[in-house]
Amino acid sequence: MHKILTVALLATAAPALAEEGMWLPSQTGAIAEQLRAAGLQLDPTKLGDLQQPPLTAIASLGGCSAAFLSPQGLVATNHHCVYGSIQYNSKPGQDYLTDGFLAASLADELPAAPGTRIYVIEDLRNVTGAMLKGAEKLTGRARYDRLETNRKALIAACEKQASRRCDVRPYFGGQNYWLQQQLEIKDVRLVYAPAGGVGNFGGETDNWMWPRHTGDFGFYRAYVAPDGSSAPFAKENVPFKPKAFLKIADKGVEEGDFIMVAGFPGVTFRHRTAAEAKFAFETLTPLQQRLLNEYSDRIISATAGNEAASIKYASILKGADNYKKKYIGELAGAEAMGLIEKKEAEEAAYRAWVAADPKRQALYGPAIAELDRLVAEQNAYELAEARRGLLNRAQLFSAARRAYRWAQERAKRDAQREPGYQDRDRAFLEQSLTAIERRYDPAIDRAILEHALAEYRKLPAAERWSSYDAALPQTLDGLYSGTQLGDTKVRVGLLDQPVSAFQSSNDPFVRLAVAAYDEDLRREAAAKARAGDIQRARSAYMAGRLAYAQSQGKSLYPDANGSLRFTWGKVTGKTKDGQVWTPFTTAEGLAAKHTGKGEFDAPDKMIQLIQAKDYGRYASPSLGTLPVDFLSTVDITNGNSGSSTLNSRGEFVGLAFDGTLEGVVSDWMFNPAVNRTIHVDSRFMLWTMDKVDGAHRLLDEMGVRR
Amino acid sequence: MHKILTVALLATAAPALAEEGMWLPSQTGAIAEQLRAAGLQLDPTKLGDLQQPPLTAIASLGGCSAAFLSPQGLVATNHHCVYGSIQYNSKPGQDYLTDGFLAASLADELPAAPGTRIYVIEDLRNVTGAMLKGAEKLTGRARYDRLETNRKALIAACEKQASRRCDVRPYFGGQNYWLQQQLEIKDVRLVYAPAGGVGNFGGETDNWMWPRHTGDFGFYRAYVAPDGSSAPFAKENVPFKPKAFLKIADKGVEEGDFIMVAGFPGVTFRHRTAAEAKFAFETLTPLQQRLLNEYSDRIISATAGNEAASIKYASILKGADNYKKKYIGELAGAEAMGLIEKKEAEEAAYRAWVAADPKRQALYGPAIAELDRLVAEQNAYELAEARRGLLNRAQLFSAARRAYRWAQERAKRDAQREPGYQDRDRAFLEQSLTAIERRYDPAIDRAILEHALAEYRKLPAAERWSSYDAALPQTLDGLYSGTQLGDTKVRVGLLDQPVSAFQSSNDPFVRLAVAAYDEDLRREAAAKARAGDIQRARSAYMAGRLAYAQSQGKSLYPDANGSLRFTWGKVTGKTKDGQVWTPFTTAEGLAAKHTGKGEFDAPDKMIQLIQAKDYGRYASPSLGTLPVDFLSTVDITNGNSGSSTLNSRGEFVGLAFDGTLEGVVSDWMFNPAVNRTIHVDSRFMLWTMDKVDGAHRLLDEMGVRR
Repeated sequence: MHKILTVALLATAAPALAEEGMWLPSQTGAIAEQLRAAGLQLDPTKLGDLQQPPLTAIASLGGCSAAFLSPQGLVATNHHCVYGSIQYNSKPGQDYLTDGFLAASLADELPAAPGTRIYVIEDLRNVTGAMLKGAEKLTGRARYDRLETNRKALIAACEKQASRRCDVRPYFGGQNYWLQQQLEIKDVRLVYAPAGGVGNFGGETDNWMWPRHTGDFGFYRAYVAPDGSSAPFAKENVPFKPKAFLKIADKGVEEGDFIMVAGFPGVTFRHRTAAEAKFAFETLTPLQQRLLNEYSDRIISATAGNEAASIKYASILKGADNYKKKYIGELAGAEAMGLIEKKEAEEAAYRAWVAADPKRQALYGPAIAELDRLVAEQNAYELAEARRGLLNRAQLFSAARRAYRWAQERAKRDAQREPGYQDRDRAFLEQSLTAIERRYDPAIDRAILEHALAEYRKLPAAERWSSYDAALPQTLDGLYSGTQLGDTKVRVGLLDQPVSAFQSSNDPFVRLAVAAYDEDLRREAAAKARAGDIQRARSAYMAGRLAYAQSQGKSLYPDANGSLRFTWGKVTGKTKDGQVWTPFTTAEGLAAKHTGKGEFDAPDKMIQLIQAKDYGRYASPSLGTLPVDFLSTVDITNGNSGSSTLNSRGEFVGLAFDGTLEGVVSDWMFNPAVNRTIHVDSRFMLWTMDKVDGAHRLLDEMGVRR
Repeated sequence: MHKILTVALLATAAPALAEEGMWLPSQTGAIAEQLRAAGLQLDPTKLGDLQQPPLTAIASLGGCSAAFLSPQGLVATNHHCVYGSIQYNSKPGQDYLTDGFLAASLADELPAAPGTRIYVIEDLRNVTGAMLKGAEKLTGRARYDRLETNRKALIAACEKQASRRCDVRPYFGGQNYWLQQQLEIKDVRLVYAPAGGVGNFGGETDNWMWPRHTGDFGFYRAYVAPDGSSAPFAKENVPFKPKAFLKIADKGVEEGDFIMVAGFPGVTFRHRTAAEAKFAFETLTPLQQRLLNEYSDRIISATAGNEAASIKYASILKGADNYKKKYIGELAGAEAMGLIEKKEAEEAAYRAWVAADPKRQALYGPAIAELDRLVAEQNAYELAEARRGLLNRAQLFSAARRAYRWAQERAKRDAQREPGYQDRDRAFLEQSLTAIERRYDPAIDRAILEHALAEYRKLPAAERWSSYDAALPQTLDGLYSGTQLGDTKVRVGLLDQPVSAFQSSNDPFVRLAVAAYDEDLRREAAAKARAGDIQRARSAYMAGRLAYAQSQGKSLYPDANGSLRFTWGKVTGKTKDGQVWTPFTTAEGLAAKHTGKGEFDAPDKMIQLIQAKDYGRYASPSLGTLPVDFLSTVDITNGNSGSSTLNSRGEFVGLAFDGTLEGVVSDWMFNPAVNRTIHVDSRFMLWTMDKVDGAHRLLDEMGVRR
């Protein structure tokens, strides 16, 4: 079956679906014709070469995408991707979140928030053979464990190279695996961020929306030791010299222009079965939506009138609002496009194609039936997990669980531990346990736990933790008065405690975590066995889908999984009955939205410059004014935030930063008539840097003519 | 001061603000020049004549507007205005709400929901002299009582004519008063309503939104006794012959066309002071918004999993959703337009004009200072009332309060009773106490009461009902187990009980109502005294505003108050940066939104006709297809729903049915760049009647060429 995949992935003649796809770099050859027809002026095959520009200029921040814009390691990404570092460096009287930050010189660049990394993509190689070695005939837990062992071995071998961060991810449901190798830059510094009224202009109100006027950009710089090796922050470190950097386009884009984006999209579900889509949109998401709304309402009413608590929970609420909006968009989008019906029709056609030929039936038929069975099991598990998982919203309980798991795993050899609990993960765990101090309040946490318990108790007994239930006090008073975990030192100190210390602890949250552990592990073990079987069934199912696609002369791209992908499209607005979205917003539109307070509060200087129409050489001749944001058809998702947008010559023309609410369902199905990506225009960035903030040092470094 | 007003109201030379205003019919002469310039082809003065078409064709449904479209009393209005009657006539197996209803003949026309009335406007006359008689020198409660006595006398005299419903409303804060006389048609029948998937296409999702594809129209017919007099439903009744009916325009409107609307806008606050606006947008509305969100959340979580309760509370939640959306729109709209700053600037200019002249200062200065003082008092009262009023959401408590008040008022002579508790109001009270049976569930009501009590208890003791507090049991269990008011017979039966029966009742909700009564009455008395003073101060303040407007050569129109008004504008879309609203939506857009379920479920036949582009003679030549809804700048608000839209020759071209979220703040300030009204296009109505529903009988009656 591996061969079938290889053929499909490397096929060069098959046409792809137009303007859709998160392609592996190695697939750019397969869509060369479309890329050329669409306007690409570079060699499509070279475009996908990880050892050549522009891909050598691409970086990841882990969760966000980025790119080098200068030979001195200057990295451009979204404002919301450097937000944590701006916050980290702000304090009373030095409010960089509101006022923005600009380092006057290299020496003034500030250490980014702890844990910030820049990952420079170095390699992406097919390791399918090594991953499946010895797993061919295994099923269930044995298969799962073998795959985990192989994965860890591959990662460990790769990470033997100094300062490399490696991962192995499945493609097409485990039809094949690729190892992604990145150089890990540990000394990351904040160089420049515009005012919050630029970088987050429009705030939650405009999130997922068009028209948009957000200047969602910011700059980091990668630093290394004087010898060029990756090193933690040190005063003597020097700017990193990337293999390549993106040239700033002399002219910006116009309506209809070809553009492309290389970045790290997180997760999509486009190859999921129709039954999985039906479950997601008719059962799981509606439940999650209700639970999230109630969670958020609890926080709002519990923090009402308590300013300190309101501040602590502000970012949690902001995150909840974002997901609320996303759920609404997903459900409405699926409804509007008839997603389930389309998935069912697609799937029926595939199954008919398999059934029509005895050979195909023999090859793929059993896997299809097996996958159906496993999906039904998995759906039931996820539904119960959605309720069990609510208990983790009680932050000290969740902290105790992670710490106890850490103690349990630490007793094993590193290579045998659960991912996330290896030595390489300790720093992340410590940070996450520390961060609770900024967003925890016992009264609020208790209100959240009450709600979670009410939902958890709706589960049948078999789906609950009976030992947790037994350990839970009659009232919650004792939990909060008795715990010491509200103290950060105590909480983080748990990471150094042995298992026995947890088991003899009197801390009520620790006791609950210990109580839940065994049953949790049993459930996890069952889930892993199922995962082993799902990998087996889904990879065979996907082999069939690839063969089916090939029989129709189509190339398929794999679902997003956090690895480097390439996508392309064109700058274009959107028309629907009664409404037109024009592809660009302008500085005048920004000034019209500006109210001078709240979410629409651009700097006075920016507004004055707009009133004076002082746009220097940054205005678009065709628009007759300064563009701010633009729309395109490129196919991105979470994780692509901060991706540089390139023109047909591979030059920098902006940054992708958001989608629109009508398009969020694209994680499941892409609809070119509806799906749009929002980019901040490079001309708005450069103008802001030049005229508003005077970031001339950086413009000179980037080679921008003023 | 009365003279000042008269001059301003009748001034014919002063230019009005362009395309804004809910003008009294008598003011059309004052804006004749603008009307002609905008394209009106009728005589502006005649247009405002209540004894001539088109105004003789205008009717009200009480809360909605309507108009006659045939000589046989056929009345067109919005689908959402006839919704209650469709619902009333539906039952299992006969779902007119979903399927629509079309009477095949006069004999098949169905009685509308109980209480439905058609009010035919007959007169609107200035009664300022009679209203203020004897009140000139009075203040406080004495002034309030005198005005009430005068008002009741005027109404009673008017209603001595058979089947007339009369009201006297204040204009310009009581600067003058007009009596509106309407013929009350009591036999109203449902003639035709399209399917719910047409009349409410888009549902809550599209409410306040553009693009819109709702066919929000329906038809009643007015019936009278064979002798032509108004009479309750009787089989032998015959269609009412209106003095005039609107001619259906042979061609629909095009972009840029002049249109006008006559209807009954409910309430606006455009002449309120800056301090009142500031209080509304910074204090009261944010509080009401939070309280409504919490109320709605309580209902959602309390009804979760209980289908019967969910159905009972569905319309309450729908109403809450509508207000939630409105609050969001109002607050965002006020913020976006800088409403408070504008009001403050406007007010400062007026006050400076008064202060600049000793005569003006003497005339208006004291009233301004007095109004400021009273507004501050009134604001504090409203803020407390917002919390006290929450207790009324406990439906049986609210029912007991109204019934007890009825018993108290019934002991007085009819003319001396509180408005709403006169003999003429008994039928309404009975209906409202009966209707509780369809939307009450004790467990849900209790959850709502708990929330209300928590908020009520935030009030300082002086703002609470101490006797209510004392009468309230420690837990709420006893309230719900002990009451008999859940029984409709018992509840409605209260209306026949004397005061003594309430005072000796053991029903816990009755006891609470009795407990709250005395303090409530004291508060009401204080509010009435303040209302008397406010009327005095505000009418003087408004006299100054009118004089100020006149000094600038401007005409003012009074705030909406439910009486007949005239407004005009043009058919036009709207452009903002990055987005264009085109003025028309089309049948193809409707089909694109159609999903076949939920809120977007047009009849199959309609979709098939659209696919076949079978638009007959109803397509717009300039659009090349069938228009559905259109946008205009006419200035309307709640109460205008169902108003016929007329072209420059006074012919019917559609029905106004909604505004957009960005424009809801127009209740406080109109912004022609932002404010848009949504109309259903007459061509879509006629096409649906002709091709989809086969309502040929009605088209023939309306004289529509097919």
